[in-house]
Amino acid sequence: METTVFEEFESNVRSYCRKYPVIFSKAKGSLLIDQNGIEYIDFLCGAGSCNYGHNNDYIKEKVIEYLQSDGLVHGLDMYSIAKGEFIQFMQKNILQPRGLNYKVLFPGPTGTNAVEAALKIARKAKGRSNVLALMGGFHGMTLGALALTTERSAREACGVALGNVTHVPHPTMMKNLDTIEYIDMILSDDHSGVDKPAAIILESVQGEGGINIVSDQWLRDIRALCDKHDMLLILDEIQTGCGRTGAFFSFERGGIVPDIVVMAKSLGGIGMPCSIALVKPEYDVLAPGEHNGTFRGFQLSFVAGKAALEFMLREHVIEETVRKGKIVQDYLAANLPLIDPDLNFRGLGLMWGIDCGAYPAGTAQQIRHLCFENRLIIELSGREDSVVKLMPALTTDDATLMQGLEIVRNAVTQVITAAVASQATGEEPDNNKSFA
Amino acid sequence: METTVFEEFESNVRSYCRKYPVIFSKAKGSLLIDQNGIEYIDFLCGAGSCNYGHNNDYIKEKVIEYLQSDGLVHGLDMYSIAKGEFIQFMQKNILQPRGLNYKVLFPGPTGTNAVEAALKIARKAKGRSNVLALMGGFHGMTLGALALTTERSAREACGVALGNVTHVPHPTMMKNLDTIEYIDMILSDDHSGVDKPAAIILESVQGEGGINIVSDQWLRDIRALCDKHDMLLILDEIQTGCGRTGAFFSFERGGIVPDIVVMAKSLGGIGMPCSIALVKPEYDVLAPGEHNGTFRGFQLSFVAGKAALEFMLREHVIEETVRKGKIVQDYLAANLPLIDPDLNFRGLGLMWGIDCGAYPAGTAQQIRHLCFENRLIIELSGREDSVVKLMPALTTDDATLMQGLEIVRNAVTQVITAAVASQATGEEPDNNKSFA
Amino acid sequence: METTVFEEFESNVRSYCRKYPVIFSKAKGSLLIDQNGIEYIDFLCGAGSCNYGHNNDYIKEKVIEYLQSDGLVHGLDMYSIAKGEFIQFMQKNILQPRGLNYKVLFPGPTGTNAVEAALKIARKAKGRSNVLALMGGFHGMTLGALALTTERSAREACGVALGNVTHVPHPTMMKNLDTIEYIDMILSDDHSGVDKPAAIILESVQGEGGINIVSDQWLRDIRALCDKHDMLLILDEIQTGCGRTGAFFSFERGGIVPDIVVMAKSLGGIGMPCSIALVKPEYDVLAPGEHNGTFRGFQLSFVAGKAALEFMLREHVIEETVRKGKIVQDYLAANLPLIDPDLNFRGLGLMWGIDCGAYPAGTAQQIRHLCFENRLIIELSGREDSVVKLMPALTTDDATLMQGLEIVRNAVTQVITAAVASQATGEEPDNNKSFA
Amino acid sequence: METTVFEEFESNVRSYCRKYPVIFSKAKGSLLIDQNGIEYIDFLCGAGSCNYGHNNDYIKEKVIEYLQSDGLVHGLDMYSIAKGEFIQFMQKNILQPRGLNYKVLFPGPTGTNAVEAALKIARKAKGRSNVLALMGGFHGMTLGALALTTERSAREACGVALGNVTHVPHPTMMKNLDTIEYIDMILSDDHSGVDKPAAIILESVQGEGGINIVSDQWLRDIRALCDKHDMLLILDEIQTGCGRTGAFFSFERGGIVPDIVVMAKSLGGIGMPCSIALVKPEYDVLAPGEHNGTFRGFQLSFVAGKAALEFMLREHVIEETVRKGKIVQDYLAANLPLIDPDLNFRGLGLMWGIDCGAYPAGTAQQIRHLCFENRLIIELSGREDSVVKLMPALTTDDATLMQGLEIVRNAVTQVITAAVASQATGEEPDNNKSFA
Repeated sequence: METTVFEEFESNVRSYCRKYPVIFSKAKGSLLIDQNGIEYIDFLCGAGSCNYGHNNDYIKEKVIEYLQSDGLVHGLDMYSIAKGEFIQFMQKNILQPRGLNYKVLFPGPTGTNAVEAALKIARKAKGRSNVLALMGGFHGMTLGALALTTERSAREACGVALGNVTHVPHPTMMKNLDTIEYIDMILSDDHSGVDKPAAIILESVQGEGGINIVSDQWLRDIRALCDKHDMLLILDEIQTGCGRTGAFFSFERGGIVPDIVVMAKSLGGIGMPCSIALVKPEYDVLAPGEHNGTFRGFQLSFVAGKAALEFMLREHVIEETVRKGKIVQDYLAANLPLIDPDLNFRGLGLMWGIDCGAYPAGTAQQIRHLCFENRLIIELSGREDSVVKLMPALTTDDATLMQGLEIVRNAVTQVITAAVASQATGEEPDNNKSFA
Repeated sequence: METTVFEEFESNVRSYCRKYPVIFSKAKGSLLIDQNGIEYIDFLCGAGSCNYGHNNDYIKEKVIEYLQSDGLVHGLDMYSIAKGEFIQFMQKNILQPRGLNYKVLFPGPTGTNAVEAALKIARKAKGRSNVLALMGGFHGMTLGALALTTERSAREACGVALGNVTHVPHPTMMKNLDTIEYIDMILSDDHSGVDKPAAIILESVQGEGGINIVSDQWLRDIRALCDKHDMLLILDEIQTGCGRTGAFFSFERGGIVPDIVVMAKSLGGIGMPCSIALVKPEYDVLAPGEHNGTFRGFQLSFVAGKAALEFMLREHVIEETVRKGKIVQDYLAANLPLIDPDLNFRGLGLMWGIDCGAYPAGTAQQIRHLCFENRLIIELSGREDSVVKLMPALTTDDATLMQGLEIVRNAVTQVITAAVASQATGEEPDNNKSFA
Repeated sequence: METTVFEEFESNVRSYCRKYPVIFSKAKGSLLIDQNGIEYIDFLCGAGSCNYGHNNDYIKEKVIEYLQSDGLVHGLDMYSIAKGEFIQFMQKNILQPRGLNYKVLFPGPTGTNAVEAALKIARKAKGRSNVLALMGGFHGMTLGALALTTERSAREACGVALGNVTHVPHPTMMKNLDTIEYIDMILSDDHSGVDKPAAIILESVQGEGGINIVSDQWLRDIRALCDKHDMLLILDEIQTGCGRTGAFFSFERGGIVPDIVVMAKSLGGIGMPCSIALVKPEYDVLAPGEHNGTFRGFQLSFVAGKAALEFMLREHVIEETVRKGKIVQDYLAANLPLIDPDLNFRGLGLMWGIDCGAYPAGTAQQIRHLCFENRLIIELSGREDSVVKLMPALTTDDATLMQGLEIVRNAVTQVITAAVASQATGEEPDNNKSFA
Repeated sequence: METTVFEEFESNVRSYCRKYPVIFSKAKGSLLIDQNGIEYIDFLCGAGSCNYGHNNDYIKEKVIEYLQSDGLVHGLDMYSIAKGEFIQFMQKNILQPRGLNYKVLFPGPTGTNAVEAALKIARKAKGRSNVLALMGGFHGMTLGALALTTERSAREACGVALGNVTHVPHPTMMKNLDTIEYIDMILSDDHSGVDKPAAIILESVQGEGGINIVSDQWLRDIRALCDKHDMLLILDEIQTGCGRTGAFFSFERGGIVPDIVVMAKSLGGIGMPCSIALVKPEYDVLAPGEHNGTFRGFQLSFVAGKAALEFMLREHVIEETVRKGKIVQDYLAANLPLIDPDLNFRGLGLMWGIDCGAYPAGTAQQIRHLCFENRLIIELSGREDSVVKLMPALTTDDATLMQGLEIVRNAVTQVITAAVASQATGEEPDNNKSFA
C-alpha cells in the first residue's frame, strides 16, 4: 500500500502518521511492525493504551473466544454477563483491596466521555459551574473536556470561547510559587474573581503536558483543600492508570481517595475503546439517562478489560513496572548527565520524560526522528513538544527495554551534543529540517 | 449472575437495563439471548449500531482472523493497512459511485466525537460560533454536541449553560409553519437576534426525537438555504446511515450533497466503536492534531467496517431494506387503523415509529413492557418517550420480522384499546405501573 | 465652532451627528436650535427621552431651584429627600391609582442598567439562566442587555458570543405564525432545545425595531403563558413609558401586570439620566449591594423626575397624547395612501412609523435627509433602517405638529413617488447618495 | 420624612443607606447635611464622584447658567456646542500637555458603559475574546464589566456564568509571587489554558478592592508585557482619575501610555453622570453606532465637566491633592502605629486605606459605625469589607481634613484597642453588633 491513499483521502487533521511515515500492519508485545515486516520498538504504546503489550495473548484469546461463542458485542447499558463480570472483578480485586468504595459509571468508549461525565456529576452535585484544572493538563477534545485541556492550538481551533474552567498553575511551573497556597488564596478570597468551583481535575503525572509530577504531599494537600472548599477531587487516571506509574492508580502514592476517578486507555486491555468514571456513592447523582452514549456498552472491552486485570495480577505487572522503572531511571541517570549535566529528566514507574526545553526549537523533534530512523517509535509532549516521552509497554522484556533506551541515548547524544556545541559557538545546529 | 451486581456497583445513570431487567449473554442476528438462554427479538438493534445483525458471521470472521494474525489493534492516527483498506473501500464503493468527494476524518470512536469535530470544522471554516440545529434532534452528550441535542433532561443535567447554538423548529412540529421560510427569515433579518451561523446540523430522520422525517424537498430547500446564507450543511447520519432508511446515506433521497456527513453506530459493522466525519476537501481546515482522540484508530473497527460494507454490497442489504421497509409499512397500515383510526405511524426504510403522544402518559411505556414480556426488545423515543420505535436489523429474516411486528401489534392493541376506552369513559386506564 | 473638532477628536463610533451634521446649541419645547440660530422641529425627541419638551420650564425651574439651594446632587443609594419624594410621588400618583404594587429599584442612570438589573432579578428569582426576548427588540448595549438586543451589527461588534437568551419571533413577523402557540410549544416541548427560561422581556411597541406593536390580546396571552410556564414577564417601557403611547405604561392597554417594569429615558423629565426597575415585592430578591452603580442616586433626576410627573398630571399630558396621536393617525391615513396605497404605517399614541421596507434600499434614508433639509429632525428604525419614525414631544403644540407632519409628507411624497416610478420602469431611483 | 418610605417602597438592594440611616438633604463642599441640618464630614465623596466638592460653586453656576439659557440638555451623539467645548478643553489642557493622543468616545453616562465599550474595542481590534483583569478589581455591574469585577457576591447574584475573562493575581496578594513573571508565563506558555487575551484592564490603585497599589515599575512592566504579547492596556481611571491620586491620571506616575483609558465619576464635576473612553486612534475601530446609549450625550455633564477641569487647573487642585495627601500620610504614620504597630495603612494622593483584615470580622464595620456616630461618613472596601477607606474631596480645607482624620483616629483607637486586647486574652471583642 502507498501512503497516497491517506494523503489523498484522509483528513489533513491526521498527525502521528506524519512523524512515522510508514504503514503499520501488525503489532506484538513491544513491537510495531510495518507492511514490509520491519519491526519498531514501541515507546509510544498507544499513548498509554497498550500497557500490557500489543496483542497480549492472554487477553486476545479471551476476546476471540468470546466472539466465537457469539457473546453479546454491543449492549448499550443493558445488563450483560461481560459487564457484570468486569464490574465484579474490578470491585473485588482492584477497589476493595484498596479500600475504595466507588460506583462504576460507563460513560462511553473513550477518555473524553469519562471526563465529560465527571464534569456533569461534579457540577450537578455541587450546583456550581466553575471547575479548576491544572495548567499543562490534557483531558480530552470534546468541548467540555477541551475547556480543561490547556494546549493552545487545540483550544483555538474549536472556534468558540471555552468557559466554566479556571486554570491554576502546576507546582512545577514557577519556583517560589506555593501552588497549594495560591489555590487556597483564590478560593478563600472573596475578591479573586474566581467563582467557587464544583471540582478540581488533575493528572498526578501530566502525560501530554510533559511528564510533570505532583508530589505525594501535594496530592494530600490538594485533597485537604478540596475538603476545605467543598469541591470534588477528580483524578484523571486515563494515562497514568492501569499500573503505568507503578501502582494501579497513580494517586495511591499520596494515600488519598479522590471523589471521582476517570480511566480509559489501557482499561480496554489490548486497545479496546473503554472508559469508566469511578464515583463515590454520595456523588452518584446523575439520574438514569442523564448521560449516555451508544458505545458505553462495548462488551469486548469488558471481556478484554477483565482479562487484562487478571493478567496484570497474575503476572505481577505492577511490581514489574516498579522494577523496570528503576532500570529506566538508573539508565537515564547514568547516561544523560554525560551528555549534558543540565539535561533534565523525570518520571515515575514507566512514564519518563527527557526535557529538551532548554535547547533550540526542534531539538526534541530531531531526537524523535533519529529514534524513528533507528526503529524506535517515541513521542514528544509538553510545551512546544520539547519533552521526549518514554512510555514502553509495562510488559516489555528487559532486553528490548535496554535496546530502546540505547536508541534514545544515542539519539539524544547526537542531537544534544550538536545543540550544546552550537550554543557554545553561537552557530545554529543542523536541525532546521522540519520534523513537525 | 444476579442483577444485584449492577444495582450495587454500577452508577445510577444506567438506563436501558431498567426497561429490560434481564442479563444478556449472547446475541446472534436478530436475537438477544439472556443468561438463561431465553431469546428476544431485537427491534432496538443497538440503537442502530447493529444493522447487519449481531455477530454477523462474515464480519466477525474477518475480525477474528485479523486478531489471530496479530494485526495492529490500536493505531492512533498512524498509517495502517486496516485503515488504508477501509478508506479505499469506502472511497471506491460508497463515495465515488455516488459522486461524493469527501475527505475522511477519524475523530474518535463514537458519534459524539464526530459531531464535535464537525462543529470545530464548521466554526473554523466560517469564523463564526453559532450553529443551527433542529428541535427534536439528538447529536450526542459531550458538551459541544449536547448544545445541539434538544432533550431537556440531558441538557439540564450538565450544570452549565449550553451556548452557541440556535434551535429551529422541525417541519413536523407546527402546522402552517413553513420552516424553510422561518429559517430564511431569521437569517435574513438583521434584527432577528440570531447570530449568523457557521452551519446547520440535522438528521433527515430524527431517531431519538421520535422518527420525525423531513421531506425530500425540504432537504433540497435547506441545501439551497445553506448556499444562500453561506453556512455549511452537516448531515448527522449516525443513526440513519449505513442503509437504515433504504439508502446508504439517508440524504440521498433528496439528491443533495452535504458539506459534512457524520457517521458512527453501524459503521463498525458488529458494534465496534467507530465514527467518521466526511468533509468536503475545501472545508478540511483543521490543522494536524487540532482534533484528536486516543481511540480514533481502533483498527478492529476498520476491519469490521470494511467487512460490513462488503457484506452490505454482496448481500444487497440496502435493496432488502427497501423491500422489508415496505413489509413493515404495509403491516402497520393494515393493522394499526383497526386499533384506532387516528393512531399515527411513520417511517422510512426500517426505521419506524408508532406515535402514542395522543394517549395518556405511560401508554408507550406499557407497550414496551408488554413487548418485552412477549420477548421483543423495543425502545421508545420522542417527546416524553411517547413514540414506539421499530428498528430491526436490516438482515432480519422475514419470518422474524413478522413475528416481531405481531408482538408489537398485540401490545399496541391491548394498551391502546384500553386507553381509548378509558378516554371515552373518562376513566384512567390501568397503566399506572411505572415502567420508566 | 467647526465640526472638525468632532471629526478630529471624537471616536468614529458617533452616529446621529452624521445624519444631522450641524452643531446644536439650544433646545426649547419641540425645537432644536443650532449654533446659527436655525430651528429644527424635533421628531426624534432624544429617542424618547424628552417627552415633556426640551427645557420644559416647570421641570427646569425645579432643578435650578434645587441646585441653588445646594441640594444633594450625588447620593449613591443613601436616603435623600429628593429620592424619597420621587418614590412617594410615583407610588401615590402613578402606581397606586393603577393598582400596581412594585418596589422601586434604582439600578444606575440609564436604561441598560435597568435591563441588566431585571435580568439579574429574574435569573436569581427563578434559578435559571435562559431568558426569552422578541426578535426586533432593543434593550441596551451592555453585554447582558446586548444579548437581548437583536440588531446584528451591534451584536457582532462586541467580539464575544452572547448567551443565555432565546429569541422568539415577533407576532408581526410572519403571517400564519401564531407566536403565542409557538412560544408555548417550545416551552412545553421537552425536546425543543430551548432551556426553561427565567423570564421573557418585551416592548409592547418596539421602538428601534421599527414600531412593531403587539396587540392587547397578545399582551394578555403572553401574561398567561408566563404564568403557565413559571417565568417572569418583564416589560421594557424605556421608550414606550411616560405617556408615549397614550398611557403612562404602554402595557396598560392589555390590562396586565408585568412582574418587572424597566423605565428610563423620559423618566428624568428633561433628559436627566435616570432609570428604574419596578419589581413585584415577591421578586425583590437581590440582597443589598448585589447590584449597584455610582450614578444610581443622581438626585437631579429625582427632582426632575418628580416635577415631570407633576407636570404630566397637571397638564393632562397623557390625554393630550391620545388626542394628538389621533391627529397624526388621521393625517397619515389621509395622506400616505395618496402617495402609494400600499405604503404601510402604524403606531400608538405619539409613536409612529412609516415603513419603507418595500422600496429600494436607501429610501428611508433619503426621506430623513429631505426632512432634515426642511428642518425636521426625524430618525429611522427597523430592519435595515427602513422605517421612518415619528416621535414628537408629547407637548408639541398642534401647529408645530402639523408643520412637522407636512414636512414628512412632502419628503415621503417626493421620495416614494420617485421610487414607485422607478420600480415601474425598472430604473434605479436617484437615491444612490449615501445618507447612512 | 421618615425612612419608612424607603423601607416600604424601595428595593431591598439598597445598600449605603443601611450604613448611614439618616435622610440627606443638602451637601456643600466636604459636608453632607441631613434633613435635620446635621452636618457630616464626607470621606466617601460619592465613591470618588465629588472630587471638587459638593455643589462646587464655580461648576454649579456654569450648569445653572446653561440651563437658564435653554442650552441643549439631551443630545444623543449629535454635535453640540457643550460637547465640542468639553472635547476641545480636554484635548488642549489635559491630553496635549501630557503628550497623549486619544480619541474621545462617549459610551453612556456611567463608568460601566465605558468599560463595556473598552471591552468591545479591544475584542474587535484584536479579534480575541479573552481579557485579563486583576484580582481585587472592580469595573462595574453590567454583565461585560461584571465579568471583570471580582467581588464574589456580585458575581454570584447575576445568575449566569461570567466568561471570557481570566483573573490574575494583584502584586500585593502573595509574597514571593512576581506577578509580571506569572502573567508573562501564562501568556507565553502554550499549555497554560489561558487563551490569548485581547487586553488587560486594571486600576493603578484598586478602590473597591481595598486600596491596593501597583508600583510605578509594575506599570512600566505591564506596559512592556502588553507590547510583548500584543494585547491592549486598558486603565480604569474611573475612581483614580481626575486628580484623586495626585495626578490627573493615576498612571502618569509610571510614565506609561495606556491604549484605552476609561473615566467617569468626577468627570461630571459635581456628580453629573458622565463617562468617557479615551482610545488611541489606531484602536478606534467601532463603526458608527456599534456602541451607543441614550444618555451618552447628557450635555450638563459636558458643561460641568469642562467647568470642573477649568476649576481644577485654576485652583491647582492636583498640587493641593499632593500636599493634602502628605498631611493624611503623615497623620496616619504618626498616629496609627501608636494604636497597633502592625496596623497596615496605604494610599496615594487622597485615597487611603486602613487595613483591618488582621482583626476579628466586624472590626472595620465597627469603625465605620463609630465614625458615623461622630459625624463622619466613611466607607469600607476590600476583602470582606475590612479596609477603612479615606476619600475626602480634593478641595477639603485643611481644618476639615484634620477634623475628619481625628474622628477616624479616635474610632480606630477605640475599636482596634479592644480588638487587640481581646485577641491577647482570647476573648471576643464587643463587636458582635451587626453593622453590615
